[in-house]
Parts: sequence; structure tokens; C-alpha cells
Amino acid sequence: MSVETPAHQAEHRALDPGIGALFNARRIAIVGASGREGNPFARPLQYLTEFGFDGDVFPVNPGYETLRGLRCYPDLASLPEPVDLALLMVPGAAAVELIPQVAAAGARAAVVFASGFSETGEEGVRQQAALTAAAREHGVRVIGPNCQGVLSTAHRLYGTFTAALELGPVRRGGLAYVGQSGAVGGSILSLAREQGIGISSWVSTGNQADLTTVEVARHLVEQPDTEVLALYLESAVGEAEFRDLAARAHELGRSLIVLRSATSAAGAKAAASHTGAIVGDDGAYRVAAREYGVVEASDIDDLVRLAHAHLALPPSQGPSTAVITTSGGAGSLAADKAHELGLTIDDLSADTQRRLSALVPDFGAVDNPVDVTAQIFRSSEVDDFIEVCRIGCDAPEVDAVVIALTLVTGELAATMATALADLIPRVEKPVALVWAAAREQTVKGREILREAGVPVFDSSEQAMRAIGSLRRVAAPTAPRGRPADFDEAAVRALLDDLHGTVTESQAQAVLAAAGIRTPEAHLATGPADIEALPLETDGTYVVKIQAPGIAHKTERGGVRLGLAAAEVRAVAATMLDEFAADEPQGVLVQEMVPAGVELIVGVTRTDGGLPLVTVGLGGTATELYADTATTFAPVDAARAGSLLMELKAAPLLTGFRGSAPLDVDAVADLVSRISHLADIAGPALRELEVNPVRVLDRAERPVLALDFLMTLETETA
Amino acid sequence: MSVETPAHQAEHRALDPGIGALFNARRIAIVGASGREGNPFARPLQYLTEFGFDGDVFPVNPGYETLRGLRCYPDLASLPEPVDLALLMVPGAAAVELIPQVAAAGARAAVVFASGFSETGEEGVRQQAALTAAAREHGVRVIGPNCQGVLSTAHRLYGTFTAALELGPVRRGGLAYVGQSGAVGGSILSLAREQGIGISSWVSTGNQADLTTVEVARHLVEQPDTEVLALYLESAVGEAEFRDLAARAHELGRSLIVLRSATSAAGAKAAASHTGAIVGDDGAYRVAAREYGVVEASDIDDLVRLAHAHLALPPSQGPSTAVITTSGGAGSLAADKAHELGLTIDDLSADTQRRLSALVPDFGAVDNPVDVTAQIFRSSEVDDFIEVCRIGCDAPEVDAVVIALTLVTGELAATMATALADLIPRVEKPVALVWAAAREQTVKGREILREAGVPVFDSSEQAMRAIGSLRRVAAPTAPRGRPADFDEAAVRALLDDLHGTVTESQAQAVLAAAGIRTPEAHLATGPADIEALPLETDGTYVVKIQAPGIAHKTERGGVRLGLAAAEVRAVAATMLDEFAADEPQGVLVQEMVPAGVELIVGVTRTDGGLPLVTVGLGGTATELYADTATTFAPVDAARAGSLLMELKAAPLLTGFRGSAPLDVDAVADLVSRISHLADIAGPALRELEVNPVRVLDRAERPVLALDFLMTLETETA
Repeated sequence: MSVETPAHQAEHRALDPGIGALFNARRIAIVGASGREGNPFARPLQYLTEFGFDGDVFPVNPGYETLRGLRCYPDLASLPEPVDLALLMVPGAAAVELIPQVAAAGARAAVVFASGFSETGEEGVRQQAALTAAAREHGVRVIGPNCQGVLSTAHRLYGTFTAALELGPVRRGGLAYVGQSGAVGGSILSLAREQGIGISSWVSTGNQADLTTVEVARHLVEQPDTEVLALYLESAVGEAEFRDLAARAHELGRSLIVLRSATSAAGAKAAASHTGAIVGDDGAYRVAAREYGVVEASDIDDLVRLAHAHLALPPSQGPSTAVITTSGGAGSLAADKAHELGLTIDDLSADTQRRLSALVPDFGAVDNPVDVTAQIFRSSEVDDFIEVCRIGCDAPEVDAVVIALTLVTGELAATMATALADLIPRVEKPVALVWAAAREQTVKGREILREAGVPVFDSSEQAMRAIGSLRRVAAPTAPRGRPADFDEAAVRALLDDLHGTVTESQAQAVLAAAGIRTPEAHLATGPADIEALPLETDGTYVVKIQAPGIAHKTERGGVRLGLAAAEVRAVAATMLDEFAADEPQGVLVQEMVPAGVELIVGVTRTDGGLPLVTVGLGGTATELYADTATTFAPVDAARAGSLLMELKAAPLLTGFRGSAPLDVDAVADLVSRISHLADIAGPALRELEVNPVRVLDRAERPVLALDFLMTLETETA
Repeated sequence: MSVETPAHQAEHRALDPGIGALFNARRIAIVGASGREGNPFARPLQYLTEFGFDGDVFPVNPGYETLRGLRCYPDLASLPEPVDLALLMVPGAAAVELIPQVAAAGARAAVVFASGFSETGEEGVRQQAALTAAAREHGVRVIGPNCQGVLSTAHRLYGTFTAALELGPVRRGGLAYVGQSGAVGGSILSLAREQGIGISSWVSTGNQADLTTVEVARHLVEQPDTEVLALYLESAVGEAEFRDLAARAHELGRSLIVLRSATSAAGAKAAASHTGAIVGDDGAYRVAAREYGVVEASDIDDLVRLAHAHLALPPSQGPSTAVITTSGGAGSLAADKAHELGLTIDDLSADTQRRLSALVPDFGAVDNPVDVTAQIFRSSEVDDFIEVCRIGCDAPEVDAVVIALTLVTGELAATMATALADLIPRVEKPVALVWAAAREQTVKGREILREAGVPVFDSSEQAMRAIGSLRRVAAPTAPRGRPADFDEAAVRALLDDLHGTVTESQAQAVLAAAGIRTPEAHLATGPADIEALPLETDGTYVVKIQAPGIAHKTERGGVRLGLAAAEVRAVAATMLDEFAADEPQGVLVQEMVPAGVELIVGVTRTDGGLPLVTVGLGGTATELYADTATTFAPVDAARAGSLLMELKAAPLLTGFRGSAPLDVDAVADLVSRISHLADIAGPALRELEVNPVRVLDRAERPVLALDFLMTLETETA
């Protein structure tokens, strides 16, 4: 059934053991291992031996007898036992030729480091296709080519030459990272290492000849040691695969943090020139990211900061943020940032304020922001300050705390850092620490916090962004069945008979079966029908031509508005004549509907096949102000209602400049019905647009679908 | 003349010698100087003596004979010679009482450090008023109270106890900083010192009992050693004073960087609770900032980064930015950020690409971003990379360069840093260096760049923001005289007779004198006039009541639209009757104007007295989408035209969805005329709004003012 959630599907999906071999290999062959100091290709062997890989390493290179004290083998065929993973440190063509030998040596996975594939032109694209084919044929899952490899800290498996490990291995912990670019991945690893962030696994997927970033991520999200999954994505993402990943991460309660590049034309060009990838339409990506609470990083350093926050801090339960600061100015800046980012700085309860008053000097403030002033440190002790922080953290009215320090330096800073390093990890809500002071004045304090795994932010903006990203979103819920009075059987029967561009009069029956109200209308197919039209003398009418293949009737004179009853018959007859060449089915004579707020409701299907429902204000505003809201179809009325409220134009529905509120529930019901219609039409539906939907100030007919466009694939129904 | 520019006025303004004494004092008294180690109040004396103040210091404290080897005096009266500046390190009440003695000791300026003034409640507010009064009475300019003082590196004058100087003095250089909060100022100084930024002067103005932040800034912008002026503003800014400052900074070619807080209600509350300041309406602030190219910082660290960029890098001449990177991924991210921030990543010229091709490896890219790939360092030499950077910097088609490094580490990094430290300061366009690698892996390289004064950014976002802020804006130009066919004498004569809310029929004459077209209209004051109305049989008309004091006619039924000629006389007569109690001047009978695009044009005068002209799309969009553009009035037609083009709705004027372009010049001309009208009305004008201005698709009458509201002060004309 098409309303099943993707997360549900995900549970039943088997994970590939070849991917598992990348992270859990017990025996690793390194083909092309080198002993030359300073050569990047010497690094995997160096890292594996120096950092204590807990399995066996088999260097393969006919030029050496031994390497780093290990016996070196002339080729894969000479290995004394089967291996799980092969690191291929050889040029591109040689790597492709080695795949059968890799399989013969028992390995389910290989890493191809060499460049010179799809990023270099036609010959490279051919070579990459050969690599993909060899991998598929021999059942070897391949990372690369043009990549920097894989690491997994559980087994100290360092199958990479990244320079990020020059100063030593990384700490084991909960961050799993995957991304194409080896350089971006290296920067992330370098920064994460410096900040003391614990890593579970790290992968550079390069040109993705076989395994893609999202596919590897889909494996890692299932691993018990993955707490936070961070991705760098620089090309088109498989929409359905990404939605599946995001849904599964949400279901497992694991943070998914994504840094995307190539979102602009210039960025895409840069990406294309080095991975051969192209940027795709990202509508479905955006919706999946929002619906499943994917955290979007803005740059490399931002990704590392957010990952640190998500590893170290619990989710927040609401927007109410307490700021505790040593400076009124810093508190004011923090409050502004909170406001900008949708967090609230609410007054603390009378009880909390009373408790704070006993500790905060008179010149300070206890409402929120809590300004302890520098005077709280006069005795060179931090107990009062820490107690203030504890009270703020304990206050039940507070969802998150930002502690904003200015120039707390020297020994005092070290004492304070020790106390905060003890406090912050115990609090069951997020506590973000901002320290606006030079590192050179706060070296010891920062080291203490680093060792305790407590992130330190350079600015309130960083801290508030992190806090905001820690809000868990509710999982999107698929509708439970169809709306009331939605005749699914009738809709299916009608759709079965339709194909191509569906005319309004054909659609009228579909809309009626779906429980969507339209204006009173009659199709007149010839002079007799026109004569028999039941017109009311004082009514006002619209006459529209109905012919398959005419999508834009207005431009061709196929729509006449505001006709008096006395004019209708003549106009209808003339229009039928004028459009004779288009083989019209007839003319549609509709009542003229009173003015009201106009909306657009549309359903599109992305290249990846995911149906998206979009609502927007009608007229020029939708385009000028990009005021639309989109989610996955189908939606129930509740979700449709929240979608409508996302519009900047929502006040036009809820009451604007003193006008009466309109019936939003009725509009939401219509949106839901349209989305179900699209759901039933299934993959055959190319496009469905109701434009305008007119919202009236009338209790008996609050909303009407005025014009309707549906395009179905011609070969299927 | 009211169209004179503020910058012009600024040139003639004398600067206060009392403010000068803060920065150039040769003899300084420190009242309440302390010898206790670790006491903040011991620091000014410590800093002045240890950092080598090149004048004389006179400690004043009856408790000591000598302090730090200097003779200590019991009181100000005992000083052996006159002083220029007094630092008052005594409690609040004592400081107020000392002001006469400060004056008697010869000092033109004093710093009051104590807290306990307006930030603490009523008694404190009274005490602060007494301080202000004493300062004014005795001719002593006061910084503070509740502040951290002043420093000036030219004379190594450290009149502050900020902890930012714990590790030593700051380097002398071009950054002047002023702000209220001592803690925020301290953080800024601490971070600036660590980054090796050179400082000329630094001031914490605290509660601003006498000298304000903007007033001190107005002094500092004139000083020859000020290259970049950075402000932290947390309360209402004097609008006219700020505009004057911004205009003068622009005129002198000095960067003005501002960090504002208390812009949200929560932020304002935080500020109010510690300085007693309130947040003001910031319309004029925003306009001044934009018109004069003020750089707006988002947080403490951002201000320091931007200041560094403006000190180290020249202005840019355009948006075209070349990215040179060691990683395709980093290049792609940088290109996205450029796009987001309005910079362009244009293809490099064929000549530049040819020169680059000789150096960049095949796997790289030479168009833009230029991806040199890690392979360029294979020989462990940086010459090729530096040559690539030089070619990028020399390319005439490039306005700015961003060099984005990933994991270039170790010795190679130090060599590269040396070469870049030599190259970047010589380039006559901004070159921003991004280094996405842990500090611990790049210590030596960063130190080399720091010593050379080259800023290093952590992310492309930071670098692109800095580059974007280095664009010089053209100074706003005041109109040269009135528009053509603008009868200034007639307008003045008409305005002289008006007061209060001006009715449309009264305004009609004013608009006509200003050369603004309105619909054909006739005022009928009674039955005879109504009878004599020159109506055309097939015309359509609007009838509106005209009475002083009725601002919203429509809501009260005082406007009837779409009347046939035959109906007009009866409607007009009835309306006159119905509004008899409002003592109407008559009814206005207007032709009904065809549909078109509707705009709003308004002029308001801020609390600070600056007139602002605003344009917006009419209808609900202006409010829903906040789609308005504002600048200082009056404007000439060219500036009015650019203002209209700032609207998101501008495509409605220039041609949208295939509609013909409208006459934007005519609309701009009308906006200019409205702004001149407001200029002539002068301070008497409270509000002037033309709503709607209807833009028609007719060459002979492209734009009409349809409704008009003007409110003038009743006492003046």
C-alpha cells in the first residue's frame, strides 16, 4: 500500500555483508604498500601498524621482502590465508584488473584510492564503468575510486592515507562520517580530532563507482556504535534512498547531520569538474530533511561543531532557553540570536528567580538572561556561579541552557572549567557553553572541557544554532486510510479511463468522487445542450471551452468571465464554433463564483518518483515571494492544515486586517483530498494542479476548486 | 538648505578637546589606585607602568606613600602639577563628589569605573543624573560610569582594568573600538590581541552618563591612526548622530563595523537590566548603515574577524571572485557561499586559464574554482601553487580571490604560509585565506601568517562574508534641486495654509503644484455643484467624502466605487447628508481609473527627525511579505528608480509572466516628487502616504496618485 512509511520498509531491508567487511575486516591486504617515508601511499600500513589494528595486515608489493616488520607478498594469489578487505594503492587501470584477484583472495570489499577515473574525461568514465562492472561481476563492494578510504575505530582499522592522522589516531566515540571528497573528509577529521570528538567510523567514497555515500550511510546508521551520522554530499542524492536514510535515522533516534555542496550552479560546476557528478533537483531532499529533522550544516567547521553538540548534549524538549552570563552585553547578544533562530527567552519562574537572587549580585539580573556579573567571582571562587548554573539547569520551565562566558581567565577559568565539566554532562537537557575569550588566555580551562567531551562554542550564534538543532521533530505520519466521503473505487474507475491531459469536465466527475466541491457547472456538447442550459436570470456565468490538449485556455480566448444569463447561450455557441479545429468535447458553463482568497494546490512527482504536494497563495505572490509549502503526498487534513500555516500568506486565511477568519479546516480537507487523488493515480500521474482554489467567506460552501489540470502518462492509466 | 548632505555638515563640526584628553593625556591621576595583586583596580597602574606609558602617572590614595615605585598622593589637591586625565577607581557616590576636584586639578576628562548607577534602579538613576550634571557644570568629559575605561596605543595609555591585557599589551595598529559593555569590549580585545590585530584605541563607555559610544566614535573616526572603526551598540542610537558618523567614515574611506545587540525584545530586556538603556526604532539606523556601507557584524567573533579583514585587505572593486583550492569539494562549498552572498564565480579568461594549465595537474580544474589538487604538492614544493595564486590575483577579470586550503600541514604548510605571507599583502585586491585544518596541525604556518598580519578564516562562509563586506558603496547623492515642473513656491504657499489631516481635495492642488498626476476629479460642496458636475454619459465614477479628521473613509462608507454616470448625483447628495455631522467640505467625484499595478509611497519622519521615504507593493503583500524599500528623503528620480528595483515585486513593473514592461521612470519621478513635497513640508510633516499609486499600461498617463493622506503638525504649517 502506497501510504506505508519508508521507515517501515527500511526495517525489512537486509544490509550488505560486503559493506560490513569495510568496517569489521579481520585480515587486510594492502596492494602497492610502500615503505617510503612521507609517501601518502605508505600511510595506511603505517597507521594500521602504529595505531594497533587488532587483526592481520598483509602488505603486497613485489619490490619488498618485508615492510614494517611484516612479511610482504608479491601478489594477492600468494597470500597465506583468505582476507576480508583489500586496499588497492595502485594506478587506476591496475586496480580494475585486480578486482577478480581480490575476489579470489576471499575479500568481499576493496578500496580503490587511485584518481584518473570519471573526474578526468571520457577515457576515465570508461575506466570507471569497467571498475563498476568488475565489482558487480565478482561480488566485491568497492569504495572509490579517487577516494581516501575508510577507518573504523572499534578495530583500529585505518584503511586511509588522510593526513588528518599525522599526529596520531582519533579517539573512539559515536560519530560516523561519510562523504565523497577526501579533502573535505580529511578537514572534518582533523578538526574533530583536535576537539576531542570520538569517532566510530569515517569514509571517503570518492567517485562512488559502486558504493555511494548514502548507501554507506544506510549501513552505518544501523550500527550500534553510531550515535551521530554526518554526511558530506556534493552531488545529486537518490531521493528515495535519502528519504529512507533520514526516516531510519529518525526512527533510531540518531542525529543525521548533512553538509551539502554544489547547490549553486557555480558550486555544481566545481563538483562536476572533479567527480563527474551532477547536481539534481533537490525538492524531495529538502522535504525529507525537514520532515525527519535532518540537521543542515553550513560549512566544514559548522558540521564538526554540530556533530560535537549532538554527541555531547541530549535532545531538547522545547524552545525555552535560559541564558546565564557574566556580562549583560553578552546576554543581550545571546537573547537576540535565540530570537533570530526561533528559540524563546522566557522569564524564569518566581521560584527560580528567588533561588537565583540569593547568589546573583544586586547589579546583576535574575529574570533571563541571568547576568551574574563579574562580581560573582570577587572571592576567586566559582561555587556561586556553578550553583547559579545548576539552578538554571534544574528549572523545570527551561528546555535548554546557554552559559555565555566572557573574560573568565587564568586559574579561575581552570577551576570553573572543572566544575562545568562535572555539571554539564549530568544535565538531562542541552547546556551549550560559549566562551568569548582568546584561547591563549584560557588554555587550561579549554583542555579540561575537551577531555570531558564538553563542546565550547565561540559565539552565541553557534550555541543557539546547536541548541535549535537539538529539537526532535515528530515523525511524519502517513494518513490512516482515505478521507471521509472519498469514493476510492469510483476514483479508480474514472482514472482508469483517462490518459494524457485531462479536461476540466472529465475531471469534474473525479473531483466529485473525491469529495471536492466545484462550482455549479454544465457541459454543453452542442446546440441542443446549450438551449437546455438551466440558467438563472440574475445569475453571472463563466463559459470555458473543453478540449483535450488545450492546457492554457485563457490565452487562446477559451474562457469568458462575468457573463449575464442572457449572453451565455450566444457566447457558448460561438466558442464551440471557434474551437472546432481542436475537436472540443463541448463548452462548460459555470456559475461565476464570488471573490475570495485564492490558493494553488499541486502535486508533482520527482525524478526519483516521490510524490510531493505543494500549497501556495494564488496570483503573482507565489512566484514573486516563493511563498509555497511542500511535503510528501498523501497527507491527512491535519498535516495539510499545518502545511497551510507554513505559508507567509497564512494570515489571509486566519484573519487579516480585521477580516473574518476563513474555514482553514475545509481548505486543509481539500488539500488532503487532492493529495489522495494523486496517490491513487500513482506513478502514472505527471502533474496535478488546482489553480485557483477559491476560499469563500460562506459557511455552506467555504472552498471550491475553480480550475483543474491533470496530466497522466498516456500508456498507463 | 535641507538637501545638504550630513557629511558636508560634519566637516565643519569642531571636535571636543575633552575627548582628545582621553587618548592623548600626558599626565594621568589614578584616584583610588591600589597595590593589591589580583585586584582589578590595581591593573590600570600596573598596565601603565609595565607597558611603558610615555607620560607621567600620579597615584592618589591616602593609604600609600608609594605605589610601584611612584610617589602616591593623598588627594587630587596635593598633585604637584596639573593633570589631563583622571581615572576614578572609587565607589559611585565618591566619584560624583570628585568631579569638581578633577576640574580643579586641570583635567578635561575623567573615567568613572564604578557600577551602581542607572543599571541598578531609581537611586542609581539619580546618582547618574548627578554625575552628568557635575560633568557638564565643571567642563569635564566623563567616560562611564560602570565601564572598563580607555586605552590608546600611540602613548601606551592603558586607562583600563580589562583582563584582556593580562598576557601583555596589544600591538599598535589601525583598529579603533568603542562600545558600552566592558565585558564585550574585553572579549573583543582579547580575541584581537590573539590574532595579532593592531589597535589604535579602545573604549568601554558603560552607562554613557556624559560621553556616548557614537560621540566617542565621532572623535575617533577623525584620528589619522584610525583605519577601521568598530562599535558595539546595545541601545537606542541617536539616528542623526549615527548617520553623521556613518557619512563621515564613508567620506574618509574608513571602514565602520557595527555589532548591535538588544535588537529583539528579549535582548533589549537584557540590555535594559544592566545599563538602563532602551532599544529604539531602528529604521533610520538601518538606512544609514546600508547607504553608507556600514559593515554589520553578527557576533563578537564575527566583529573581530571582519575588523581584521578590513585592516589587512584593500576594498574590492566588484563581485567577481576567483576561488583557488586544494580540493574540489572545498571549491564547491566556497562557490555555493559566494553565490549565497551575492558574489559571482565567473569563468576565468582564456588567457588566465592557459597560464594556469601549465601548472595545474590534469585531474584539477582551471576555470573557477581553480582546483590545484593535492598533487601540486607532490614534490613537497609550493612554488607551483604560489604561482597559481599569483596568476589568480593578477587576472584583470577578478575582483577578489579566496584561497581555500584543506589539509596542507607540517613543514609544507610553513613554507606555504611564508610564501602567502609575502604574496597576499602585495595584492591590490582582497585575498582571503581559508584554512580548514586543525590548529594543532598548522601551528607554525598560522604563526607566520599572524606575524605578517594576514587573516586566516576557518570557513568559506567567513571568507566570503569578509570579501562581500569589502565592497565600497557609492555615497548617496542628495538631489540637485527640485524636479522639473515642480512649482516649489506654489507648494510652499499651499502648505502654509494647511494643518492637521489634509483632505484629498486640499491635497489635489498641492499634488498638481508638485507635478503629480491624479485622476480627473471635481469637488462638489453642495446641491448646485452636484448638479453642475461635468459627467460623461459612458464614464465610470468614484465618489468620496471630503472632511478633515476622516482618515479611513472606506471603512465608514465614505467611498463608493464603479458608479455609472446616471447614479453619481444621487450617491453624492446622499453621502453629503450622511456625513453632515463630520462637517464635510464636500464630495469628490473622480473618474474610475483602470486596473493596474498598485504601489504605496510614504514619507515618515523618525523620532530623531530624519525623513524616510518608503515604497512598497500595494495590497496585502506589503504587510505579509514586508516587501518595502526605504531611504532618506528627498530622492532624485534615479535613486527613486533604484529604490523601486529593490522591491521583490519589481518584476511586476519591469514585465512579469509576459506582460509588457510599465513606465518605471514615470513611477520613479512620482516617488521623487512625493519625497520633495515632504522635504518642503519639513519638520511639520508627520506622515505622508500615497496609497495606492496606480501604474497603468498607458503611455499618456503611466502613473496616477489615487489616494492621499498627509498629516501636518497643527501648530506649524
